[in-house]
Order: sequence, then structure tokens, then C-alpha cells
Amino acid sequence: MIATTFDALLRRDLDFQLYAMQGLGELVSRERYAEHDVETFASIIDTAYDVAGERFAPIAAELDAFEPTLRDGVVQTLPALAGALDAFVEAGFMAVGFDAKHGGMQLPHLMTVATQLIFSAANGPAAGYPFLTQGAANLLAVFASPEQQKTWLEPMIEGRYFGTMALTEPQAGSSLAEVATLAVPHADGTYRLTGNKMWISGSEHELSENIINLVLARLPGAPAGVKGISLFIVPKFALDPSGEATIRNDVTVVGLNHKLGQRGISNCALSLGDRGACIGYLVGQEHAGMRQMFHMMNEARIGIGAWATCTAYAAYRYALAYAKTRPQGRRTGAKDPTALPVPIVEHADVRRMLLAQKAIVEGGLAIVTYCARLVDDEHSHPDPAEREAAHRLLEVLTPIAKTWPSEHGCEANSLAIQVLGGYGYSPEYPVERLFRDQRLNPIHEGTTGIQGLDLLGRKVTLGGGIGFTLLLARMREEIARARADATLIKEADALAASVDRAEAVTAILVGAQRELGAERALANATIYLDALGTIVIAWMWLAQARVANERAANATDDAFYAGKRTTCRYFFRYELPKAAPMFDLLASLDDTTTALAIAEL
Amino acid sequence: MIATTFDALLRRDLDFQLYAMQGLGELVSRERYAEHDVETFASIIDTAYDVAGERFAPIAAELDAFEPTLRDGVVQTLPALAGALDAFVEAGFMAVGFDAKHGGMQLPHLMTVATQLIFSAANGPAAGYPFLTQGAANLLAVFASPEQQKTWLEPMIEGRYFGTMALTEPQAGSSLAEVATLAVPHADGTYRLTGNKMWISGSEHELSENIINLVLARLPGAPAGVKGISLFIVPKFALDPSGEATIRNDVTVVGLNHKLGQRGISNCALSLGDRGACIGYLVGQEHAGMRQMFHMMNEARIGIGAWATCTAYAAYRYALAYAKTRPQGRRTGAKDPTALPVPIVEHADVRRMLLAQKAIVEGGLAIVTYCARLVDDEHSHPDPAEREAAHRLLEVLTPIAKTWPSEHGCEANSLAIQVLGGYGYSPEYPVERLFRDQRLNPIHEGTTGIQGLDLLGRKVTLGGGIGFTLLLARMREEIARARADATLIKEADALAASVDRAEAVTAILVGAQRELGAERALANATIYLDALGTIVIAWMWLAQARVANERAANATDDAFYAGKRTTCRYFFRYELPKAAPMFDLLASLDDTTTALAIAEL
Repeated sequence: MIATTFDALLRRDLDFQLYAMQGLGELVSRERYAEHDVETFASIIDTAYDVAGERFAPIAAELDAFEPTLRDGVVQTLPALAGALDAFVEAGFMAVGFDAKHGGMQLPHLMTVATQLIFSAANGPAAGYPFLTQGAANLLAVFASPEQQKTWLEPMIEGRYFGTMALTEPQAGSSLAEVATLAVPHADGTYRLTGNKMWISGSEHELSENIINLVLARLPGAPAGVKGISLFIVPKFALDPSGEATIRNDVTVVGLNHKLGQRGISNCALSLGDRGACIGYLVGQEHAGMRQMFHMMNEARIGIGAWATCTAYAAYRYALAYAKTRPQGRRTGAKDPTALPVPIVEHADVRRMLLAQKAIVEGGLAIVTYCARLVDDEHSHPDPAEREAAHRLLEVLTPIAKTWPSEHGCEANSLAIQVLGGYGYSPEYPVERLFRDQRLNPIHEGTTGIQGLDLLGRKVTLGGGIGFTLLLARMREEIARARADATLIKEADALAASVDRAEAVTAILVGAQRELGAERALANATIYLDALGTIVIAWMWLAQARVANERAANATDDAFYAGKRTTCRYFFRYELPKAAPMFDLLASLDDTTTALAIAEL
Repeated sequence: MIATTFDALLRRDLDFQLYAMQGLGELVSRERYAEHDVETFASIIDTAYDVAGERFAPIAAELDAFEPTLRDGVVQTLPALAGALDAFVEAGFMAVGFDAKHGGMQLPHLMTVATQLIFSAANGPAAGYPFLTQGAANLLAVFASPEQQKTWLEPMIEGRYFGTMALTEPQAGSSLAEVATLAVPHADGTYRLTGNKMWISGSEHELSENIINLVLARLPGAPAGVKGISLFIVPKFALDPSGEATIRNDVTVVGLNHKLGQRGISNCALSLGDRGACIGYLVGQEHAGMRQMFHMMNEARIGIGAWATCTAYAAYRYALAYAKTRPQGRRTGAKDPTALPVPIVEHADVRRMLLAQKAIVEGGLAIVTYCARLVDDEHSHPDPAEREAAHRLLEVLTPIAKTWPSEHGCEANSLAIQVLGGYGYSPEYPVERLFRDQRLNPIHEGTTGIQGLDLLGRKVTLGGGIGFTLLLARMREEIARARADATLIKEADALAASVDRAEAVTAILVGAQRELGAERALANATIYLDALGTIVIAWMWLAQARVANERAANATDDAFYAGKRTTCRYFFRYELPKAAPMFDLLASLDDTTTALAIAEL
């Protein structure tokens, strides 16, 4: 059974999130977007659905089955991939969010995220190539010199050059403090790099004219730890004396990592400067690499949340379509053995599994689009106070927007397999592929453990806790709005109690950092991240239900809005209560893991 | 990094479960096992570790990488697999539990399960071939005629014939009521079968002289539903007029199903009677197939729980060894960037992930060995009342022993990947393979949803609820014992409260079946299964901690016993509290899933 129409990401739902929830339409009133109107947005989204549905979705299974291969240092990918990416570039999607002065379309970040969502849902690994390029280009747009922007950024926005982020090294997975790649200044103002990078997606292929690797490395004598890291442009083709990118740089793929999933995107082990000169160009100041990288980290991490959301979303839509058409079994309690079997969507447990998936994927979509709107506010809100508030909220929401869809996306993808039963375990159906793809998301761009430490150890207290305080305030504003809706009072009260509890437990944990030390206070930071994330998603569901009620009141009520209300109820009854024992554990400052002797394991 | 010694299933822990927890040593006093002594048990387990470590574990990755292939109706498997299975058979492991009169070793069921655990931990898919054979042979040992036993069972016990269970059909996955394969009586007293079977593991290969498929089918005019199903022996080679198994039967593999995991064991789509005569031999009475199958279902399903436990256990042991040797990062709060990185096992979040895995796999091992001992009591306890009690307890514990390790095993296998980070996502390390293998366990031998309905809709009320009442009593007996240990009073009290809550909520749900109907009352049966399962595993952990304390008091205390106490504490602080919101939801008789309109999804 193959889905004949592309609804891996339901258009109706995406429009609801963009317009009804996040007010995409209002953004045209901002000076930055004055060239655009709502019709432009709609037509770009139409085109994205067309290209994603026609070029990306149909090759997803093939791309998974035939991993890229390495021969003589050259990575080969499927011809169909090149065709899909050409179509993406030709339709202008690479340029969506960039400034007009660099050749970009200067559209709201919400539009960038909308297109990323559509292509991720169609084919996550294929979409990885342009999204990595956009991430790298974003960084150059902020930190590179005008000359560097002309040379490297503009061809990326045109889609002629692709980009990568080369952070990780074999000995230093999550720990960037241990980055050891060396960059030695050269007489001509460039640098010569030597070292090894690992798990670098897309750093070798024949899909673009050039590949711009953004590489973290250390200058000789640089301070130890993250404060001594600098950022370099290391192109596949470096500049010859006439300024043309013609010199094959010594950035060599020494191996391709095979992977559980995400097989469509090559994952490379890189050797720099092993055979000759690996030329790098410093971006901005020396030793500023981590600050530069972290400047873009919010958007990159929210991007992973979006990717994870879509990977689960596509599986949910498939499982739903399957459940509606697959006949098997009878209604519980039905006694007549000659009765015809019913579609499995009639079984309560199948409905529960589908609702759980819907709650995760539409809740994930809500938080990533909420964050995308915050990025727009951060960059283009006319009120500086609102820009600052958006920035602070993003700081605290980023680990949640990255992790909650990644971790619970794994759960949702597993449930999609379960709905299909034995068929779900077979590669004849796409759900097992999406399950494998998803498992990467809790690992890359900062593991879940790293995100937990970032949230509890840094973000909730950053700037005197202003971001966290703002988050509590935003949730309470929604609670107040929802209380005006008689059908949502119970949910509003439940969220209010949860927000109070989150505030109280956070205070306990912040106090414990001072009194008992970071190790003990942060021991369960991952659980804190999940608990607070669950409350944030509950907030998203309350908002969706409220807006659905408002819209339904002014229009013909329909199943779409009813589905939002039902799934909100599901979330508050089945999911939000899980946060309570997590907060109890956190408040107890349990020391089981820190007191443990290793030999006991 | 490859483990150099075979400790995918820690011998120390297995011995603890078998002897200290389940009293394997006492069983030699029973008449049935009078031929054996404890030294025999130990030496058989030694041999199992040797054969599993030398022949099964080393080929696991290869078996996964090279799936069986089908050519001209013949399934080809790796030569190394045949060698491993020969070693298994030669060492006598196929015969462990069978009666001496059939050529078996007549060892306790605990010993059968112990050997299954060891081989499953070494290489689950390879172990599948003999375990399916043992399952099929078990059924023939109970229901086949003496003549059939001579012809088919004895060569299976010798390891010359292998066996399969052929239940599922393409249109009838979990719903056996829809089995449509037809069996028409033939003049010679045999039957001619026509139909299709799906997802049949091991039903074609060259690994044994013959393959004995146990097939569910319907006689012409049989009652509809499960009451009209009969069981047939359908061998690959049927009997010629001289009684020799020389006629190639018309049971044809029409396709191999590729799978997410468990790739080492062929998974066949079968066509029966499509090209000629598919000869079947009726087992026992007509229309008794479901009863016969269900007679063996407890042991088969507990076998899946054992398989799941070992699949997670092997991954846990690997992740633990990795965490002890992989240096990365510094202790939380450490400020000196020049300090050497520490092994990741020093990080609290890694310890939490390891403890979570340990709690699942050693908790799973405890419940499957507990159930194995119950099977021994059911079959060989001198007191008929104890035999009956063991049978009743098994009825209610079977869905839990199958499902809890399968579902939480998926969680544990995912955590093992997370401990390894990017490396965990790579097939260079075994954890991603084990993660894929594990995902089958919540699906086959009755999905998790089916197990939930079996538990809440049937088992808790079966025989007037005697099995459930016995379970509550057993848990309360352990609570009383643990209360005598001053270090376990808090845990004993917590379990007591949970058991009370389980009893009360079960009463509500049973009442609701009468008052509101099965559909509403059973809507959240899967959640009930998980909640009660969590309490059962907490009970297992309390018992392990108590026994560990008893043993430690009489011996040099050591890290093994301390590990049991710590993991018990972990389970009671981190895991058991998750049952509370589940019971709250169940008590509310929530109707979200049953009231839902399909269009809302």
C-alpha cells in the first residue's frame, strides 16, 4: 500500500499552525517583508508541496536502500537525488530566508521552516543536503566578511555550492572542548589545517559545484577548552591566485560511516591536510568559533526538532491511512464469529496509538512553528523589547524544541510500526525506515543528555532567569485565555497546576546547584528536560484547542477542529500526568546515580 | 571495540536468578529429576556458555548482514549458521527438557530456559531455529499420538528435524479467527491442505533433514471463528507408503520477507497445496487447534519475554563496557579545561541510562526465570494444590512476562544506542542490530495490544479471578518478608501501596466490563498491562534486593549484591512511580478513544 497523495505533512494542519497559530499573515506588515504578501506565501507553499511530493517523496525508499558509496575519494549518490536537489534549487527554495542583498528572497523564518518541514516530511535524508547548506550559509551571513560572503555565501544561496558543519572529531563526540584539529597561520593570511573530523554529513558528493565545510579548529597556542576554538571556511575547491575556486583542497573523505538510518545522506570521516595543504579561511575573530557556532545553534537545533517532527508525522499519516483500510478482527465484545472484520482503526487500542502519535507530531509541529515565529520576532519585530523577549524565550525553549520531538518522535515512530504489526517490521512499508531515520535525532546536534544540561545548568538561570520567567508568563497568559473558553477550564487548571509545580521544582534545583553542587543538582537534568517539555507541549495543545474552538465558532465546524480538541483532551489525560512523578523525583534531589559505585553496574 | 569475553548474559547474574532466587538446586529432590544433580546443571550451563560464546556470538553480525536468500524455492543461509546449529545439537541442547522416554534429558524447565537465555543473548536469530523446534516439539509431546511422536517428535529432540509454528495468514495477522487455510480429509486418513501462511520463521532451509510445520487450518464446514480451527503436522518431507519421510510435500516458500531486524532467521510466505498435494496429519481431535496452541502458549510467550530480555541484556553489557573505557568530557561542574577527559560512565546521565537498562534486563530476567520455575511447579510439584496454583499464576503472569521485557526492552536497547552516541547509530557496533532485533518482540506471538486484552479481558477474571488473587498474595508475601529487612522498609511500603492500588483499580475495571461493556472497560487494557507489569517488576526487584542482602550477610559483601540493592532503589524511585498516573487514568474509565470519530484523526 503506497500513499497516492502526498499528505505526509497535512497541508490543513500546516496552514493552521502557520496562519491561525503563528500569525504568518501579519508578518507582511513588517518592513523586512514589505515586498511580500500572503498570496506569495501560499504559492511558495503550494510549490513546495508539489516539488516535495513529485521529486522527494518517491525516491525516499530507494535512497535508503542504496547508501552512498565511496570510490577513489569520490562519493557516489543516486542520480535521482541530484534531480530532486536540482528541482529544489531551481524552484528557489535555497534562498527563501536570506537577505535580498545576498540574492535571497528575504521571506520570514516561518516560511523557511515551513519549506523545511514539507521537504523533511517527504524525504528527510535528501532534505538534509539543502538544510545543512542553509545552516552553514546562515552562519556566514552573520559572521563572514563581505568579501567572504561574495565568494562563498552567495553561491550557496544560489544553490551552486552546498555547505556542511564539521565540528565532531573521533575522540570528541559531544565534548567540543576536546577538538584538536590544528590551524596554522600561513603567510598569505589563510590557514593550513590538519586533523580528523567524524560524522560529517554531506562533506563529499558530486551534487554541487563546491562544498563549503565550516570547520572548528585550534590555532597554535590557543587556550584550552572551548575558548580556544576558531571557525574556518574549508572549501572542497579553494581559491587560486586569481580568486577562482579551482584548487582541489586537501579535505579528504577517508571513509563513509554506515548508519542505522538517514542512509540517503552521506556521513563522512574526514582527513584534513593529510596529503598536502588543507587551506582554511578564518571566519571573524580568532578563538570566536564556539560563540559563532552557538549563535546559530538555536535555529539549527530547532531545525532538528522540525526534522524529528516530520519523520514522525509522515509515519503517523501512513499508519492512519493503513488503519482505515486494513480489515482485521471484530469490535471488542462482539460475539458473532461470522461477522465481517472491521478496519483496525475501530479498535480502541489502535485509536490510542494513533492519538498518541497525533499528539506528538502535531504538538511537535506547534512548538517548532512557535519557535520559528520567535526567530522572526527576534530579527524583525519593530519593538526592541519584543526582540529581546523572543531571544530570551528561544534560549530556554531551544533544548525542548530539539529534544521533545526527537525523543517522543522515536516513540511515535515505534507506534506507527505497531499499528502495522508484522507489516510494520517489513521494509515493504515505509514505517520501519522512518523509525530508523528518527533514532538519530536524539543524538546529533547535541545529545539529549547535553540538552538537559544546557537547559537546567545554563538556560533556566541565564540572564538572571529571564527566559524561564518569560516562559512561565507566556504559559500563564495562555491559561488565562483558555479559561475564557468554558470547554477548556479543566485543561487550563491542570496546566496551571503543572506550571506552578515546574516553577517550584526549578527553584529547588537552582538552589541545589549552589548548595549541593552542579553534579548532584544536574544529575537528573534529562528528566527535567522531559518534564518541562511535556508541560510546554501541553501548553501548545491548550493553545491549539482554544484557537480551534475560536475558528470553529466562526465557520462550519468540522472534524479538523474537533480533532484538535480531542487530541488536546488526550494529551491532558494521557500524557501531562506523566510529568508529576518526574517532578517528584527531581524535587527529592535523588542521588542514586551520583552515589553509585561503578562496580555495581 | 569487540567484547573479548562472552558476558552478554552475566553468568553471575544468571546463577543468582537460577539458584538464589528460583531454587533450581532444590528441584533435584523431585522424582522427575532424580537422575540429575546440581553439578550436572552447572556443567550443562558451562557448556552452553562455551558453545554460545564460541559458535553463536561471533557470527551474529554476519548473520544480520547477509539475510537468507531464496533461489528456486530453496532458502540459503550462511554456512557458519549450520555449523553453530550442529554444535548446539551435538552438545544435546535440543533435548534438555524433554522426557527421557522420547530421548530427552528430562531436565527442569528452568534449565531449558537457562540454555535458551544463554543462546539468545549470544545470537537471538540463530537461537530462533532450535527454540521454534522445541516449541513445536513440546506441542507434539502433549497432543500427538504415540505413532506421530515416534515419527516426528523424536527426530526433533535428536535435532535431526527442525520445527515451526505456522499460524498467521496474510489477511489475518493478530486475528486467528480469520484463519482460512482449508484441510480436506483424504481417503488414507491424512488431509490435503490449501492456503497461504505469512511471517513463518524457519519454514524452509537446508539446516535439518526435515522441517515439521505445525499448521492451523479449517476442515470443510467447520464452525466459524477460533472454534473451527484444527492443528496439522505438515512436514517438508511427508511419509511414503513404507513410512519413510521421502515425499517432498507441497509446502512452498513463495517469498522471503525482509525485516527490520532478526535477519538471521528466514521469514517465509508459504503456499500450501498450490502445485500438488500438501499432505497434513491431524494432531489430536478436529477443531481442537486453538486449545492445543493455547496450551503451549504460556511457555512460548514467556520464551519471547526471555528472548527480549536477552536482546536488551546483551546491549546493556556492551554499553556498560563501552562506557567504562570511552573517555569524553569532564565531571559536571569541573572548570579546568586542561583536565583529562573521564570515562563517560562517570557522567550522571550515562549512569542513569545504564541503571535504567540494568533495571529492565535484570528485572526481565527475574520474571522470566520466576515463570520458568512456575512451569516446573506446574508439571512436577509433588503437591497438586501447588501445581494448580502455579498454573493459575502462569495464566495471569504470561502476558506480563511476554510484554514487559519486550516493550521496555525496546527502551533499554534504545538507551544502549544513546550511551554510545554516534557510534551507537553505526553497524560497526552491535547495539543498533540488537535495537532492530528487539523491535519484533512487541509484535510476534501476540502483539502488546492482544496481550493487554488477554490480561484484562480474560486472565484477571479467569476461574473467578483465582490467578490474580494468587498474584496479589504472592506479592504481599514478599512485602512481608522484605519488611523484616530494615533497609527495605520504604520499598516494601511503596510496593504495598501499589499492590493495593492495582487491586482496587482492577475491581473498578472488572465492574465496568459488566456495567459499561467490554469495549469501554478494555479501551486502555494496554496501559493496564504496563501498569501491572511495572508493579510485578518492582516485586521482582524487591525480592532480588532482599535475597542479595541475605546472601551478602553470609558472605563477603561485594559489588554484585550492592548493585542489586542500588538497582532496586533505582526502580522504586524512577520507575514504579510511573504506574500511579496510569492507574489514575484507568480508574477514570476514560472514553477518549472510544468516543472519537475517525475523521478526527
